[in-house]
Amino acid sequence: MADRTINFSAGPCTLPLEVLEEAQSEFVDYHGAGMSLIEMSHRGAHYDAVHQEALQLTREVAGLPDDFEVLFVQGGASLQFAMAPMNLLATGESAAFAVTGAWAEKAVEDAGHHGDAYVAWDGSDEGYARTPSAGDLDLRDGTRYLHVCTNETIGGIRFPEIPQVDVPLVGDVSSEFLSRPLPWDRFDLVFGGVQKNLGPAGMAVVFVRKSVLESGNRDLAAYLRYDVHASKESLYNTPPVFTIWMTGKVLKWMQAQGGLAAIEAAAERKAALVYDVIDGSDGYFRSPVDAGHRSVMNVVWRLPSEDLEAQFLKEASAHGMSGLKGHRSVGGLRASIYNAMPESGVQALADLMRDFADRHPA
Amino acid sequence: MADRTINFSAGPCTLPLEVLEEAQSEFVDYHGAGMSLIEMSHRGAHYDAVHQEALQLTREVAGLPDDFEVLFVQGGASLQFAMAPMNLLATGESAAFAVTGAWAEKAVEDAGHHGDAYVAWDGSDEGYARTPSAGDLDLRDGTRYLHVCTNETIGGIRFPEIPQVDVPLVGDVSSEFLSRPLPWDRFDLVFGGVQKNLGPAGMAVVFVRKSVLESGNRDLAAYLRYDVHASKESLYNTPPVFTIWMTGKVLKWMQAQGGLAAIEAAAERKAALVYDVIDGSDGYFRSPVDAGHRSVMNVVWRLPSEDLEAQFLKEASAHGMSGLKGHRSVGGLRASIYNAMPESGVQALADLMRDFADRHPA
Repeated sequence: MADRTINFSAGPCTLPLEVLEEAQSEFVDYHGAGMSLIEMSHRGAHYDAVHQEALQLTREVAGLPDDFEVLFVQGGASLQFAMAPMNLLATGESAAFAVTGAWAEKAVEDAGHHGDAYVAWDGSDEGYARTPSAGDLDLRDGTRYLHVCTNETIGGIRFPEIPQVDVPLVGDVSSEFLSRPLPWDRFDLVFGGVQKNLGPAGMAVVFVRKSVLESGNRDLAAYLRYDVHASKESLYNTPPVFTIWMTGKVLKWMQAQGGLAAIEAAAERKAALVYDVIDGSDGYFRSPVDAGHRSVMNVVWRLPSEDLEAQFLKEASAHGMSGLKGHRSVGGLRASIYNAMPESGVQALADLMRDFADRHPA
Repeated sequence: MADRTINFSAGPCTLPLEVLEEAQSEFVDYHGAGMSLIEMSHRGAHYDAVHQEALQLTREVAGLPDDFEVLFVQGGASLQFAMAPMNLLATGESAAFAVTGAWAEKAVEDAGHHGDAYVAWDGSDEGYARTPSAGDLDLRDGTRYLHVCTNETIGGIRFPEIPQVDVPLVGDVSSEFLSRPLPWDRFDLVFGGVQKNLGPAGMAVVFVRKSVLESGNRDLAAYLRYDVHASKESLYNTPPVFTIWMTGKVLKWMQAQGGLAAIEAAAERKAALVYDVIDGSDGYFRSPVDAGHRSVMNVVWRLPSEDLEAQFLKEASAHGMSGLKGHRSVGGLRASIYNAMPESGVQALADLMRDFADRHPA
């Protein structure tokens, strides 16, 4: 094969090479069955073993307490923006939103179609440069939950600490999924699309507190009910077999790396390689976000001019790097440094940044 | 690899071997990009080409008129059981259902949570042995659409002709997807999970009349709106990249087979191999469904006793066949003969059936 690209895409994104190679070797004839896993009944023994193992590995890697269920649901975090209020809100209850960027904005907009949703904090005036502290949040009486997007992929900020408030949290963790431990006691629901840290696109993993399943709204089509997915072990209908198979492989790889603690330490180390260059560049590189709220998954930064940014992208491409262009809504550069990104890849980026600044003074 | 199993699974199910082998060869390094397609941004050039080609091929193979849109939506047909009434029903309108088996039953139950849904015909008293004619349907005033499941996977029946009634149809075609031409003028909406005839599990393909997009309900979260998926060309959020990639390959394979007309002819020919054995067995094999309503995708039949059925399954397995056990709710045997099942596989089944009847008299 060609040299492997250093892939900083915001998602879908780089996956462990050994996972891809293992899947390739098993792809046409799964364990001597004379067919691919993706051709097998989802009620059969081969797939069932894959499915149960993926559920169990998710639970183990997440360090999930027993009072939570793990669900695999298609539709990504976007469908969860509908399912969360549909399932959790009873008449007279409302959902609060910490609007920290593009993804929280979508979540509050979507929830408003399926219940009473309001903005408890809005960071748009500050250019989404930080996340709120618990004291910043304006929570009304009758609030059932507070929605937080723990890491905003586009703005490149995260909650340094998950806030503790008087209501349960609903957390969208898509772009930092299983990269740091979560205080589960503060959450009733946590979800994320898998297509960043966990596997190929095609589903969300949903962690839901069991008490929510007992009290939730049941006047919904079956696919939209958390309790249905839970009672059927995420086999209510045909699951996204390939995505679950691959997610299980990535989770096994994460365990082999040392689990969540090791993954978190690596993430901090990798992000620091880039932030150190930014902070040591005498203002040549600029981070638009508050230092204490910087994402370790999505590092965003600017150069002295858009011309230099374009030049940097060109040179990065020549060095075998891709996916570094910032989101079209904010411009600049962005390195998404998900779990499967090797440290050597980030080191190469940091080296290029230093070298570039020397060669192209502002 | 081991000999290829003759896979009669009802879904997920057999896929063309050449499609699997091509995907395997491209799996780790897509066209020399230094990464897998499943690692690439869904906004990038490589994936965009795959996505647009899959949309276009779907349109071509289906023979879709210009006044319909093609959408790729996660969640299978099950999520469509919610989205159809959510999008199509206005206040005061109702949805009628022809209850022809397990799948139509689920559809009417789900729709009732999101609008006024009623049963216009119920085949349960007849053991779901046939589908209704247009005259059998009891349609009320204010009916927005009639839902039909054109082929019932479990019962093994299909509508020999798609009924023409005074209201538009919504069609669930999951288990006969792209195996016969449809009278598009009778439909406002057609959907099906791809995991039988079109590709690996992970999405539904939705065909929606453009006028529906203009008049549909918009008080829904974005992911649940047909008009949002249409206006974003099924890229509102991260799509199920792998499923779309593979579906495109299967559609190309279908075109190479001669397209829908050739696929339909092959399906009729393959199903006849089994039905001819049943009909020529002097009652040894019995079909529980009306002859004129027999599915050509899911052939169900019984043997003289459950012991003989178990023995048949054992012998079939020894002959390299799998997936022939009938659905647990109805028992007996079922051969799902989807588009990618080679005629030689069905011939092997028919040969075994004849031979078995000779060796094991009732």
